[in-house]
Amino acid sequence: MASLGNVMVGQSGGPTSVINSSLVGVYKTAKDNGCKIVYGMRNGIEGLLHERYVDLSKYIRNDLDIELLKRTPSSFLGTCRYKLPSADDAPEVYERLFHILKKLDVKYFFYIGGNDSMDTIMQLSNYANKIGSDIRFMGVPKTIDNDLAVTDHTPGYGSAAKYIAAAMKEIIRDAKTYPTDSITVVEIMGRNAGWLTAAAALSKSEDCAGPDLIYLPERVFDHDKFLKKIQELKKYNTAVIVAVSEGVKTEDGKYVCEANKTNIITDSFGHKSLGGTALYLSDFLTENTGIKSRGIVFSTLQRCASHLVSRRDITEAFTAGADAVIAALNGETGKMIIFKRISNAPYSIITDSYDINLIANEEKCVPDEWIINDGTYVSKEFDEYARPLIIGELSPFMVDGLPRHLFIDK
Amino acid sequence: MASLGNVMVGQSGGPTSVINSSLVGVYKTAKDNGCKIVYGMRNGIEGLLHERYVDLSKYIRNDLDIELLKRTPSSFLGTCRYKLPSADDAPEVYERLFHILKKLDVKYFFYIGGNDSMDTIMQLSNYANKIGSDIRFMGVPKTIDNDLAVTDHTPGYGSAAKYIAAAMKEIIRDAKTYPTDSITVVEIMGRNAGWLTAAAALSKSEDCAGPDLIYLPERVFDHDKFLKKIQELKKYNTAVIVAVSEGVKTEDGKYVCEANKTNIITDSFGHKSLGGTALYLSDFLTENTGIKSRGIVFSTLQRCASHLVSRRDITEAFTAGADAVIAALNGETGKMIIFKRISNAPYSIITDSYDINLIANEEKCVPDEWIINDGTYVSKEFDEYARPLIIGELSPFMVDGLPRHLFIDK
Repeated sequence: MASLGNVMVGQSGGPTSVINSSLVGVYKTAKDNGCKIVYGMRNGIEGLLHERYVDLSKYIRNDLDIELLKRTPSSFLGTCRYKLPSADDAPEVYERLFHILKKLDVKYFFYIGGNDSMDTIMQLSNYANKIGSDIRFMGVPKTIDNDLAVTDHTPGYGSAAKYIAAAMKEIIRDAKTYPTDSITVVEIMGRNAGWLTAAAALSKSEDCAGPDLIYLPERVFDHDKFLKKIQELKKYNTAVIVAVSEGVKTEDGKYVCEANKTNIITDSFGHKSLGGTALYLSDFLTENTGIKSRGIVFSTLQRCASHLVSRRDITEAFTAGADAVIAALNGETGKMIIFKRISNAPYSIITDSYDINLIANEEKCVPDEWIINDGTYVSKEFDEYARPLIIGELSPFMVDGLPRHLFIDK
Repeated sequence: MASLGNVMVGQSGGPTSVINSSLVGVYKTAKDNGCKIVYGMRNGIEGLLHERYVDLSKYIRNDLDIELLKRTPSSFLGTCRYKLPSADDAPEVYERLFHILKKLDVKYFFYIGGNDSMDTIMQLSNYANKIGSDIRFMGVPKTIDNDLAVTDHTPGYGSAAKYIAAAMKEIIRDAKTYPTDSITVVEIMGRNAGWLTAAAALSKSEDCAGPDLIYLPERVFDHDKFLKKIQELKKYNTAVIVAVSEGVKTEDGKYVCEANKTNIITDSFGHKSLGGTALYLSDFLTENTGIKSRGIVFSTLQRCASHLVSRRDITEAFTAGADAVIAALNGETGKMIIFKRISNAPYSIITDSYDINLIANEEKCVPDEWIINDGTYVSKEFDEYARPLIIGELSPFMVDGLPRHLFIDK
């Protein structure tokens, strides 16, 4: 096979349990199709600008490493939250990047990430177009938030949803074992999109009643209505369990958690650092009902609990990476791999590639009609959509009682 | 086989991931040895006083149910935090209990629980002794805290330790993927005994550096020293990870988390409701270092994450229940089953029964010599002690993508 040039792949934004499966998909498919060197940028585009990259074949040495990497949470290559300035504002950054890529004979560039990472791919591919570069830039979707536009869902979501639903079942079983009154408020990630919080509803099954209330950021949060709902539920229930998004906001547009904080940290993309919603609300409930309340925060565990991934998610993450390589080899650029759902039952999807300009910086929220009960639960349609995404397991490789991970030695 | 009389079994205190395995051990061994009816008290002794009990054979109908029950977290029968008054103070409570037991022809009474539950067994067996009752009272040890006296370790601890170590590995991998400075403070349960927090050290392995600092409640917590340690670590590390017990106290005997709270709830045993240590300390670090800090709290997940149990713990929990039945059938009463360690490598233990009067209300802490580095880490001896307890897995039974549990229909 004639050499096709080299590959550069990076991971960006918040990691997931399956982001390395997409990396494996890129690596293996590129190698299988004759690409010579697959470089991995350390800490995404930020690292690449400092010429920090590795030859991935030095770290993925055999098929066991490939399987181990699929079972490794967080970004194997390291991640970043670097916002690429526009080419008009900082042409020197683009010149530097393209100089590095040319020096390494890179012809294919893959970036595994969420909304902000797709913005990076968009800017790079548009720049390449402008200067007549033949380097192809492809986005591989990744985010536990499931908020990327156009695609049916996003690799990373299924595993986070599975973790949330499984942990909710366990928390509910724990809370209901006591004969004494209690309220449990569970805080779930997701900023402006309620997909992850909605996944708490998946815990509802023959052997579990599910949470009593689910509050998504798509609807305005009203403290009085919330308190009233809780008081109603307390009439017939010893233990009440609430799932709430970290991103719920009151009518004035303020995050509920802001009420609790003196200063809120903002990242380079202008996103506020959220958190504290569950503790704030459980204190609010204790004060107003006198009932013992507990706030539970899944925190980073929902994006890194690779010991409990969805097999389907792992497989689809791999596919997204693999298909991005195939598309690039076929001459495509400036696109992201998307999933289109053919049917819920039996579950069937196809993949496609889609213009990155129509995806980047768009946010996909939970459809209005899927939010029911006056904004306190999600519908059967959500269950039919999300349930297939959490099916199947991939057992960790256990060493000395713990899941083994693949790692880059310093 | 001649009928031996009936059995009453209950679960009490905070649940664990393997407490139902002890229940299975009691149930199966009692049945196999000719006991007629095995009653389960709903919500422990508190429920029994209201004559709330079930015939367990109605709910554990076959061998599949037994396997399912082993995989079910939290107390299948429900739990309580009821403090039995002394027989001198409230003879009528004892009269009522013994009346109920007599009515049901109960000859063997088993209570699966921690320190407070062993106090219950002690009082009941002493009372039985006083009135010449032939009912035998046996304690089956259970607590994630591992703080029961005399026994080498306690069923429930191994699985909680495994969860903590596995989650720590994942959290560390997540934290270290970013190129930016961060401090992560992980709060772990355990009140006055540091066993659970120490388990964070088990995450240290070929593929993980482990947490940088570990603070147990056995040592006085000093804010200034803590800050200094962090500042030292920050010189050479981008991400610093700290494991801290919810029960750490400052020199004045106050819980660190109390600094953050206006009112602390106290339960019927006089235990203060803890929590908030991680958030308080991460705010403290951000204020004093300017570095982004995150508090992560395992909360109830460390005692109910039955999707990730230690196989050895499950087996030993069953054995503790089974051996309590054998001991009672042999005429023993007023005792708790204990484990004695024969060797660490290869791991070997034997069980025995031990006078409950010498166990109840004693608290076993981490040995002084196992706490090293000026109270900021645990020694190799701890690893050798705890590592064998987290070995092996018991796969959940997955239905629709989630672990299935056995439950009592209302």
